Amino acid sequence: MADKESSISGDTEVTVLGLGPMGTALAAAFLDKGRGLTVWNRTPAKADGLVARGARRADTVAEAVAASPVTIVCLNDYAAFHRVLDPVGAGALAGRTLVNLNSGTPAEARAAAAWADGRGVGYLDGAIMVPPVLVGRPESVLLYSGPREVFDRYEPTLGLLGDSRLLGADPGLAVLLNTALLGMMYATLNGFLHAAALAGSADMSATEFADLALGWFMPVVLSPASLAEQAPNLDKGAYPGDFGTMTMNLNALEHIARTSVEQGVHAELPALMRELAERAIAQGRGAENYFAMFEVFKTPGR
Amino acid sequence: MADKESSISGDTEVTVLGLGPMGTALAAAFLDKGRGLTVWNRTPAKADGLVARGARRADTVAEAVAASPVTIVCLNDYAAFHRVLDPVGAGALAGRTLVNLNSGTPAEARAAAAWADGRGVGYLDGAIMVPPVLVGRPESVLLYSGPREVFDRYEPTLGLLGDSRLLGADPGLAVLLNTALLGMMYATLNGFLHAAALAGSADMSATEFADLALGWFMPVVLSPASLAEQAPNLDKGAYPGDFGTMTMNLNALEHIARTSVEQGVHAELPALMRELAERAIAQGRGAENYFAMFEVFKTPGR
Repeated sequence: MADKESSISGDTEVTVLGLGPMGTALAAAFLDKGRGLTVWNRTPAKADGLVARGARRADTVAEAVAASPVTIVCLNDYAAFHRVLDPVGAGALAGRTLVNLNSGTPAEARAAAAWADGRGVGYLDGAIMVPPVLVGRPESVLLYSGPREVFDRYEPTLGLLGDSRLLGADPGLAVLLNTALLGMMYATLNGFLHAAALAGSADMSATEFADLALGWFMPVVLSPASLAEQAPNLDKGAYPGDFGTMTMNLNALEHIARTSVEQGVHAELPALMRELAERAIAQGRGAENYFAMFEVFKTPGR
Repeated sequence: MADKESSISGDTEVTVLGLGPMGTALAAAFLDKGRGLTVWNRTPAKADGLVARGARRADTVAEAVAASPVTIVCLNDYAAFHRVLDPVGAGALAGRTLVNLNSGTPAEARAAAAWADGRGVGYLDGAIMVPPVLVGRPESVLLYSGPREVFDRYEPTLGLLGDSRLLGADPGLAVLLNTALLGMMYATLNGFLHAAALAGSADMSATEFADLALGWFMPVVLSPASLAEQAPNLDKGAYPGDFGTMTMNLNALEHIARTSVEQGVHAELPALMRELAERAIAQGRGAENYFAMFEVFKTPGR
């Protein structure tokens, strides 16, 4: 590797593998903050802009990983992680730390952590909760999971990317929570868009609907504070129906499903929501409040 | 009806028909504010508390409606509305105004408005967007639809119940918007509860999840202001994919569905969300952003 010394002259503080839009944003954030940076990408030209700004280009993955104590991996998925890192010799990897920011499933994250453990490599799994354009801002959240001591050691580096939060030692937690939060986002967006479609079926514009739905309903009825109040009850499994029962909610869900059909808008989402309430009632939860749906969601269903 | 004059001595300002929990709350709000009030309920004893506070008890529906220029109807549904009001003679009804707060579908509301129109009865349809305990507070929202002049005439009375908003002349609008907003609520609650179940599958408590999901994610990523920004684009049908495409969102939705199965939590909701994104892509929306789902929701689907 002597002929590579011109490009890899001595250690850098951090390495980034994978220079798609997100990897490039991560690398740029390190450069912005003056960190010595080594980069690698399968198509080397993707690094040109970063190299012009002072990054060192590694010609091989092994060189890239060897160049810094910590390497941020930002590839497409866990399959790509293994395709890129499995061939690297144990010598280049041992004693280094990998911070893997692929999305995937908790089982894939745990398998990657076990793979790293078997090679004497430190490992954190992570998820970037903002689009590339927001990487590097202090309020941009990145979730991590893995050993506390590894996180603490590299927190000064990871902190340059944003608000870095360690969720726990289970390496699957970061991708799991990323998945959970995105699922919450899609469900909420679908709810808003379906409701806007219902309003539109009577010629109300989305803008007028948004005034009502977002200017008043969401902040008041669906405020984060009002939902957070219920969290301890979820942990206790306590769903008192004093202010409304699942049976009353099923009645409302039937109206929603029926109205969707009547108005000619999409009816599958309300039909599924109605069916879920029916199943909660079939499980004996008719006199509990709607948050008892948590118990339904904790099981695989059919 | 002379023998009824002891109980119905002269006009009151407002009548309430139906004294379930909500009707009783409406009636109590009028009494609280010093309005002359006549009440009727199929089971007369339900009025005892209100009568003790100064309400007049009508023995028949006809007497109740004749006692005030405006009658608030708060029965279970439109079937009950017709069951109670169809037998009332045209003489007792003519020139009076009914404000019907049943839940139901827009077609039912329009049919009730046409029924009233045929009898020379003013008609507003409405929806109470708060639980009984909040009725009468100035910030509690009630939605109305029907003729502007009828709404304006009785706004001083309706305003005693809360923040009264006329949506438009189509009598179906109030129940439609009630339905749309509740649908948005259930979708959002389901999204939160399913996400909490996913977090719980790795032993994260709902309280800890709520810190993350409600203390940070929802207020930042799902803020009403950020959603409202998209409303004009929905009205234009403009879904530029510059900051993320439906195809990228499908990839995330596949992760969510796969992770739900892997973690043993309920997987139908994510599976449907994934399928909806697949259908949007099949309709040629792969390069548009996620809000293009609005176009999918505007159609009946399969």
